[in-house]
Formats: sequence, C-alpha cells, structure tokens
Amino acid sequence: MTGTPQDPAHTRPHVVIAPDSFKGTLGAVEVAKAIADGVLAAVPHARVTCLPMADGGEGSLIALASAWGVRRHELDTIDALGRPTTAHWATSPDGRTGVVELASASGLPGVADTAPRPLHAHTRGTGEVAAAVLSAGVEEVLVCLGGSASTDGGAGLLSGLGARMLDVDGVEVPDGGEGLARVASLDLSGLHPRAREVRWRVAVDVTNSLTGEHGAAAVFGPQKGASPGDVAFLDEALARWAGVLERETGRAVRSLPGAGAAGGVPAALVAVLGASVERGADLVAEVVGLPAALADADLVITGEGSFDSQSSRGKAPDGVARAAAASPARPPVVVIAGQVLLPSVQSRASGIRAAFSIAPGPVSFEELVDSTPQRLREVAASVAALTLLREV
Amino acid sequence: MTGTPQDPAHTRPHVVIAPDSFKGTLGAVEVAKAIADGVLAAVPHARVTCLPMADGGEGSLIALASAWGVRRHELDTIDALGRPTTAHWATSPDGRTGVVELASASGLPGVADTAPRPLHAHTRGTGEVAAAVLSAGVEEVLVCLGGSASTDGGAGLLSGLGARMLDVDGVEVPDGGEGLARVASLDLSGLHPRAREVRWRVAVDVTNSLTGEHGAAAVFGPQKGASPGDVAFLDEALARWAGVLERETGRAVRSLPGAGAAGGVPAALVAVLGASVERGADLVAEVVGLPAALADADLVITGEGSFDSQSSRGKAPDGVARAAAASPARPPVVVIAGQVLLPSVQSRASGIRAAFSIAPGPVSFEELVDSTPQRLREVAASVAALTLLREV
Repeated sequence: MTGTPQDPAHTRPHVVIAPDSFKGTLGAVEVAKAIADGVLAAVPHARVTCLPMADGGEGSLIALASAWGVRRHELDTIDALGRPTTAHWATSPDGRTGVVELASASGLPGVADTAPRPLHAHTRGTGEVAAAVLSAGVEEVLVCLGGSASTDGGAGLLSGLGARMLDVDGVEVPDGGEGLARVASLDLSGLHPRAREVRWRVAVDVTNSLTGEHGAAAVFGPQKGASPGDVAFLDEALARWAGVLERETGRAVRSLPGAGAAGGVPAALVAVLGASVERGADLVAEVVGLPAALADADLVITGEGSFDSQSSRGKAPDGVARAAAASPARPPVVVIAGQVLLPSVQSRASGIRAAFSIAPGPVSFEELVDSTPQRLREVAASVAALTLLREV
Repeated sequence: MTGTPQDPAHTRPHVVIAPDSFKGTLGAVEVAKAIADGVLAAVPHARVTCLPMADGGEGSLIALASAWGVRRHELDTIDALGRPTTAHWATSPDGRTGVVELASASGLPGVADTAPRPLHAHTRGTGEVAAAVLSAGVEEVLVCLGGSASTDGGAGLLSGLGARMLDVDGVEVPDGGEGLARVASLDLSGLHPRAREVRWRVAVDVTNSLTGEHGAAAVFGPQKGASPGDVAFLDEALARWAGVLERETGRAVRSLPGAGAAGGVPAALVAVLGASVERGADLVAEVVGLPAALADADLVITGEGSFDSQSSRGKAPDGVARAAAASPARPPVVVIAGQVLLPSVQSRASGIRAAFSIAPGPVSFEELVDSTPQRLREVAASVAALTLLREV
C-alpha cells in the first residue's frame, strides 16, 4: 500500500495542473502557471506538474509544445486561399509524435482579411505542413482540427502530401470544394513516401457525418460564408468525393461519426491513410502524458474559460476527468473556470468533484479578465489548502 | 483513535454550518439552510449541524433563537425616543441564558422616521427588555449591541432596570445624553432584584473607549445625527457620567476598551452590574454551542456577505475560525461569501483554510443577490465533495 494522501510517509502531495486555455483571455500555459503559483503559496511542499491541455482544436499545438517543453517549427506554406503564410508544427521530445494543427496554415482567422470564398478555400497548406512532419521522421501524426475555412473533404491536405485529384479526363481538379464537384479518381503515386508508414490520429470534437443535414456543409458551411446554394453545392461535392474515396480505398467514410469535422478532413485521412478518429481532449491528454502524471496524483486541477453544458462534449476538463477516473489513484478533479454554469450534480456525474469560478463577487467581464491570473492563484490556493492540508 | 475523516469506521462525516447573515440579502438561518442543502446533495451520508451565527450586533438575537430552536418573546416597551414599540428577547432552551438585543427596542432604524435627536435618544426600552429577561429567571444575560440611536452611556438601560440618575438636587434627570450632563448621583435602591444576581456579558465588536477622540460621541455620534457641538456636549456628559459611575461603584470605566460601543452602554453595565465585555462573534459562537458541535466536526462552513479586511476584526467567520482552532478536532474552516476580497494568505493566517465566492462568473450585484440561495447550494456542494469524498 503506497501513497494515499493520508499516508504520513506521503510527505509531498502531487498536484497535476492540466487546464485548457481561457479562450480570449489567457493561454493554457499561463493558466497552469497561475494555478501552480497558488497551489505552492498554500502548500509549499507540494509537487506540481503543469500539463497545459487543449481540446484537440485550435490552440492544441501550442499547448502540446508547452507540455512537452519543445519549440515549434516554422514552415513557409500557403493559407486556405493559396496565399503565402507561415505555419507551425511540433514533435514530441522523443521525436516519435508529430503534431499538425489545421488552423495554423488553413485557419479561418488567416483569411478573415478578405471576403469568404467557401467554394475555393482548401487545406493544401496543412498537407504541406504534414509532409514536413513526416520528413522529420515521426512515427505518428496527430492532426488537430477546428477553426477551418474550407469544405474540401481533406482533398487539399492529400494534395499537400503529394496526391492528385483528377477529373474524368485525368486532369487535376482545382483546390477547394469546387474541385470536388468534378473529381473522378485519385492518383496516389506521388504521395509522400512515409505517409502510409505512420499512424495518423485525428482529433475531433464533433460527431457530424460528412454529408447530409448534419454534415460538414450544412452545419459548418454557413459560418465559413456559404450561402444556402453553396451549402447544397458543397454537400453534393462531398458526396461525390466520398464515392471516389470509398471506391479507391474500400473504406466507408460517408456515415463515419466525426467525418464532417473541419470541412470533412477526417474523411480523406481515414480513407487514404487509415487514420483513427479520436476524441480531441482524450487524445491530447494521452500524448502530453497525463495518464502517467496521474498515477501518483493527490489532486488534479483543470479549467477553462467557461465551464458550461458544452463541457461534457469533449472539452479539456472532460478529458482530464476521464483520464483521472481511469487512473488507479483516482485523484479528485477540480475545475477552476472564468464562469461555472454547469450544475454541480452534472459535473459530478462527469467525474468532476468540484467546480469554482474565479469571480470574487459581483464583477464585470472586463474586470474579471484583467484579474484572471491573480484570481486563479487565489482560488487555486484555496482548493489546494482545502484538499491537501490536514492540519490548520 | 477515533473519528478522523480517513477512518473507514467514520462513516458519517460531520459538517458544522455556521454562517453569518448575508446582510441585506439573506438571513443567517436561510444561508445555513442553503449550504446544508448543497452539502447533502453532494454528500448524502453527511451529518449536518446548522448553527446560524452573528457577530454580537444587530441580528444576533434572531440567529441565537434559531440556533437554539426557540421562539422569541415580545415585550411592549418604548423606542429610543420614548415612543411605544414592541421589542423581542429570547432565552436558551435550558432557561439559563437570556438575550437582549439593543437594536430591538432602542435601534436607530426604529427612529429613522423622524429627525435625529442625538441628545435625547436613550436606551430605557432596552432596560425594560432586560428586566423582562431577568424576571424569566435566567442566570446570565447577553447584551448584544450595535445599531444604537443613543449616546447615553447606558443610563437609560439602568433606568429601565429600576435605577435612578439624580442631579445635585436629588431630582431625576431626563433620559438621554442631555440628562447625563447634569447627573450627580445614582440611586440603585429600585434596581430589579435579580439584576445583581446574574452574570452580564456584553457583546462588543469595537475597542473604542467611552470618551475622548476615539470615544463614543466623537466616533459614533455623527452617524446618529450629532453636530460637532453635540459631539462636544455628549463627550463632556459621558465624562461626567463616568465620574459618577466610578465614584459610586469603584470600577474604572473611562478607559476601558469597548466601553464606547453603542453610545457607552458597556460603561454602565460594567460599573454597576459587573458585566464582562466580550468579543461579539466569540460570545455568540460559545452560547450557540459551537465548541461542542466542533468536537467531532470534519468540516466547518461559515460565511458572510462580504469577506473582506473587516472580517479579521470580530466578524462571525473570525469567531468560527478561532473556535475551530481551539477545538481538538481542528476541522478545516471554509468561508463561502457573496464576495471574497481578503487575500487567501491573510485568511489562512486567521485559520481559514479556503474562501470561495458564490459568484458564478461575471455577474451584477442584483443578479447575484437573486441567485444567492442557489449559488450557496452549488458552492457548498463543491466544497463538501472536495473535502469529504475520498472516492470519485
């Protein structure tokens, strides 16, 4: 029997600090730092492990790089409209795992300076980043989705890796959803030589299918600027693309849950590269080493900007709670958030022991944003003292 | 070895819930009820003891009656300006302790309908209430101060108990500070026969002396409507009254810390009746039985509307923390407050393990007031789950 918090021999309680970013306010790295400061102020003998988390969407790359303690690499590539841009990628310290974040090259913010072109936007730049990751010699590639500008079924990403989408005449179709409407076959002869040697894992936080009323075009098209007519066009183009993928690879993607994420990117990765579609928060938790860190944890603190009903659908605190529940130590999980809207009975059902807001009382949004690091320290100090101190 | 929270035999954790009121929002009884609901929602097997607290000032009577589970008695008496009013008092279930709250008969709110009369306002009504308490057969009388309209040095209270303040001609002086300016001697022959048989305990939360620049008139006179001239007059009258008290009783009151509370009431009670001046929050904690309840407590939850720097100066959470620190069980003390302004490093130095606001995020004062019971339940549930549950 070792290491329960009550064991007198267990002199240094271990606190795992695994928050998501407070979106628009403070990055996950800074949130974790503030929480760690608070924990150590209250329990100076604690051992803290900071593992900034992410939900597998935008911001995941920077959180992973920070958790791993590595610098991100840069790549000159193209954005979602084919214009020059600089994107980032990273590999784990052991070099085995590479991370591609779709939003880095092909994100909607990167093309927000011009009118939306939902039929033309594509993911070729992300494919070029993925090629760079493969060339670095990794054994697995994580593809973090979220924040995409395109509805190209991942065809652009395959193009960036060297594949070619051809029309009935064998002529390469243009990038973007528009090209998919004419695609007839797939030429994989130029595919990056390592593309089929590695394990591909796609981080997804939605369950939408590729096509149909809950599909990529219908649900996410409008926020990328697609008119009702564009949506109908893109949905038909994706259906055609699915047919080509299924015929050429023998893998079914049309009704695959999650295939509709990021304009359909998972469809191409699953069909052509055998990618697994995984819950983003769980995937991030795994690759930053959360399960190992939890093995002797006495307390886990996670958090995010708004802890609300969305939180039970694949956000970081949920992934942390699942990892803690799966850990033999079963440490208590506490959420510290900008706002707590989820009733405690629901959060407890998700394995979250307690949830506290950083708001000190009646306060405006702006005031709270300004005091976020200081309030994180204060609430973390209270949580740590209450959980870990056995004497006044 | 018995009853640590970690002892498997200790199947029902004991939570002592001892909050003050959230002033202007929710009474201490209702605050305690909401916290208890939250604790039991998270930890259904917990045993809860609700002891609504007070700081020994206004509101203490109702908190004590509730904690004791007794009904308050009514008495027709007079207010601070001599007009008919109804006041309340209570006795402990064993009949040994009686409670008089000065604000009930002689409070400032009771005379807020008319122009302030700082030289005339008095505490005779409170003396009549005290006489009723004595006649009920109690062995000790708690006098809760705070919210007074008068600066009469407690002369009115003595009058209500049957004493007479006389001028140099042996004629009774009028009630109020004005009368004190002419007082020359004290006739105690008509004093209630039990007045000197019982133990008097005065709850005080200030350390002001009776007279001088930090005295009752100078510091508290203006808020009772005293002009600078009135303050000077009242200060001199109190000094004269102190001379009479000291000469007639042999007890020094002029520089007694706390004698300046409530217009100088403690001066009369100490000199004539041998009262002890006690810190209000500690006195209330003692008489509601907090020390006994803490003996096997696993967690103590207290709180108040605003947990700020005033809190270290005699408010309820401070009294609760002192009682917990003095308890052999040394249970952790958690504050739940409308707003938390005291830095955690300061609250921990006062023996408070953790402090949480009920604010769920950015929120207006009005919204927070409206959601106070619901938010108390939520935060209490988190606190209880975090502190008492050892398994997810």
